[in-house]
Amino acid sequence: METTYFNITPVDTSIYETIQHKIDHKTKPLGALGDLESIALKIGGIQHTTTPSLDKPTIIVFAADHGISKDNEVNAYPQEVTTQMVYNFLNGGAAINVFCKQNDIALKIVDAGVNHDFKEAPNLINAKIDLGTKNMVHEPAMTTDQYQQAIKKGAELVEKEFNNGCNTIGFGEMGIGNTSSAALLMSALTGIDISACVGAGTGLDRNRIANKAAILKKVQQKHFIDNAEDIMTSFGGYEIAMIAGAILKSSELKMVTLIDGFIVTAALLFAQHINENVLDYSIICHQSGEQGHRKMLEHLERHAVINLGLRLGEGTGVAIAYPIINAAVNFLNEMASFESAGVSGKQ
Amino acid sequence: METTYFNITPVDTSIYETIQHKIDHKTKPLGALGDLESIALKIGGIQHTTTPSLDKPTIIVFAADHGISKDNEVNAYPQEVTTQMVYNFLNGGAAINVFCKQNDIALKIVDAGVNHDFKEAPNLINAKIDLGTKNMVHEPAMTTDQYQQAIKKGAELVEKEFNNGCNTIGFGEMGIGNTSSAALLMSALTGIDISACVGAGTGLDRNRIANKAAILKKVQQKHFIDNAEDIMTSFGGYEIAMIAGAILKSSELKMVTLIDGFIVTAALLFAQHINENVLDYSIICHQSGEQGHRKMLEHLERHAVINLGLRLGEGTGVAIAYPIINAAVNFLNEMASFESAGVSGKQ
Repeated sequence: METTYFNITPVDTSIYETIQHKIDHKTKPLGALGDLESIALKIGGIQHTTTPSLDKPTIIVFAADHGISKDNEVNAYPQEVTTQMVYNFLNGGAAINVFCKQNDIALKIVDAGVNHDFKEAPNLINAKIDLGTKNMVHEPAMTTDQYQQAIKKGAELVEKEFNNGCNTIGFGEMGIGNTSSAALLMSALTGIDISACVGAGTGLDRNRIANKAAILKKVQQKHFIDNAEDIMTSFGGYEIAMIAGAILKSSELKMVTLIDGFIVTAALLFAQHINENVLDYSIICHQSGEQGHRKMLEHLERHAVINLGLRLGEGTGVAIAYPIINAAVNFLNEMASFESAGVSGKQ
Repeated sequence: METTYFNITPVDTSIYETIQHKIDHKTKPLGALGDLESIALKIGGIQHTTTPSLDKPTIIVFAADHGISKDNEVNAYPQEVTTQMVYNFLNGGAAINVFCKQNDIALKIVDAGVNHDFKEAPNLINAKIDLGTKNMVHEPAMTTDQYQQAIKKGAELVEKEFNNGCNTIGFGEMGIGNTSSAALLMSALTGIDISACVGAGTGLDRNRIANKAAILKKVQQKHFIDNAEDIMTSFGGYEIAMIAGAILKSSELKMVTLIDGFIVTAALLFAQHINENVLDYSIICHQSGEQGHRKMLEHLERHAVINLGLRLGEGTGVAIAYPIINAAVNFLNEMASFESAGVSGKQ
């Protein structure tokens, strides 16, 4: 499957005027619901209706390991934490489990390439490309074939949810070392110097952040980049490539696409590089505490729904922001208008 | 009832260390849940437990009219909109109805002094002090007796919810003209010049904001202020005084007290003036789009949970932020620890 396969049409904005009229006639001062109004407009546009609905909201968490994390130089936690956290997801003990349960969001866990052979589990989707990527300090993280497999698999998983009646999908990730991948993707895709893309990840101190930046600078110099595929095969993670494929597919299917923090936004940047129209379907749910995320959002000229200093990944920013997105749809559908409620307008 | 009657003890912070230990051993990097962690700590402190719970969350919306709004100089909408919106609340068509329904929050509507005689309605609480305040351009908004009635009534209504099993309470308001009251209270209580306290309210343009500021400056000069009571009797609204009484009582009862935007924060400033300890029990749910609210938060040295540019009142900021506050409690209670999940710590 070629990434150019995705047929993503821009959102038809001809309906915006009708939706805005509906918003402006609700029993509230003009603009008084702030960002909820722009979210309602965006979702109405995606679904091309003045009565949108969020059906079977689902978060897919993609987990994978990274060759670079074996040296324990760029990551605060050892590589085996990826495996341990997948078990934690399966047992319902992680933050994403708690928040999805609270907000009635279906949760799927995908092994995109964790360095562990999981037994079959009813709530684990096996999409393993390999037992972690290669160490990009020495060689490309993945082959072209693996990259294409990952894109295809991400798309397939989304299509399956879509066929099951889901029209609102969010993405999360788990992968010790993946802020390094995301920082390199960000630098390659935005032109921002790598030192400004590197952050604390799960909790490096100042010296270790500087060391991480120096290592990633060397990685950057080592690889020859000619096109999008080179960027992902050199620096990628399987989970990030799979999320990129998932975003491309959910946009093609005109699904409301909910973007989490630094890693998932790196996948969005990559998907945008393939097809600019993905931005029409994406809502950035939160601004991460990982310092590079703010710069990503500035680059995308996008504003996140919430900014709570979360820096956990797993899709937690999506799960926490979801009730706000739901509220935007609900006010559009359920609030009375000035006419229906008999309320006087502005004088 | 004297306001000094309230016996509000500071939160006993001796439990913070135990709660923080529990937070820090959850399966996440230290601090990775950002503001959710500080909210969890605060609520654990209020309830003095490592397993807090939010029981029967309730929003009370206090509605009242303002004498100053009859001239249509300081308000964008005519005074009768207060009455019309109360009917809209009772019929379930307002934004606060939609958001409370979505988030399973009980909603109570209180007539604190609307300029209309409502028939009895099962979901309307009659606490009417009068048919709106007097016009503070010419005379004090209320009498000392009315002020004391309002404080007492707000406290009684909260105590009733508490006795019914509620431990988490938020306040909202409706009252055409009440940003003028709130701006004057803010200026008197913080020392900030009135011109910096005045904003667009429900949608005044630049010239009308300047006119509003000029009128309020004259109001300020007209009244002699010697103490807290003078501030509220001169500039108050019945709904604002009642909310101040409600905040004092919910703090005394160690309830999690959820503060909405500009108007409710003005009531909080007043309650704080009576008893500083109310801040220990209050969570500022959102930062309003009304420009003075940011300055109020700076004065209080408090940070709001969300900042979505909402400027509707009604308690909508509380209702929208509530799932985030709930998420803070849920992660503290439900997430696995590193030990229980068998996840390795930081290296």
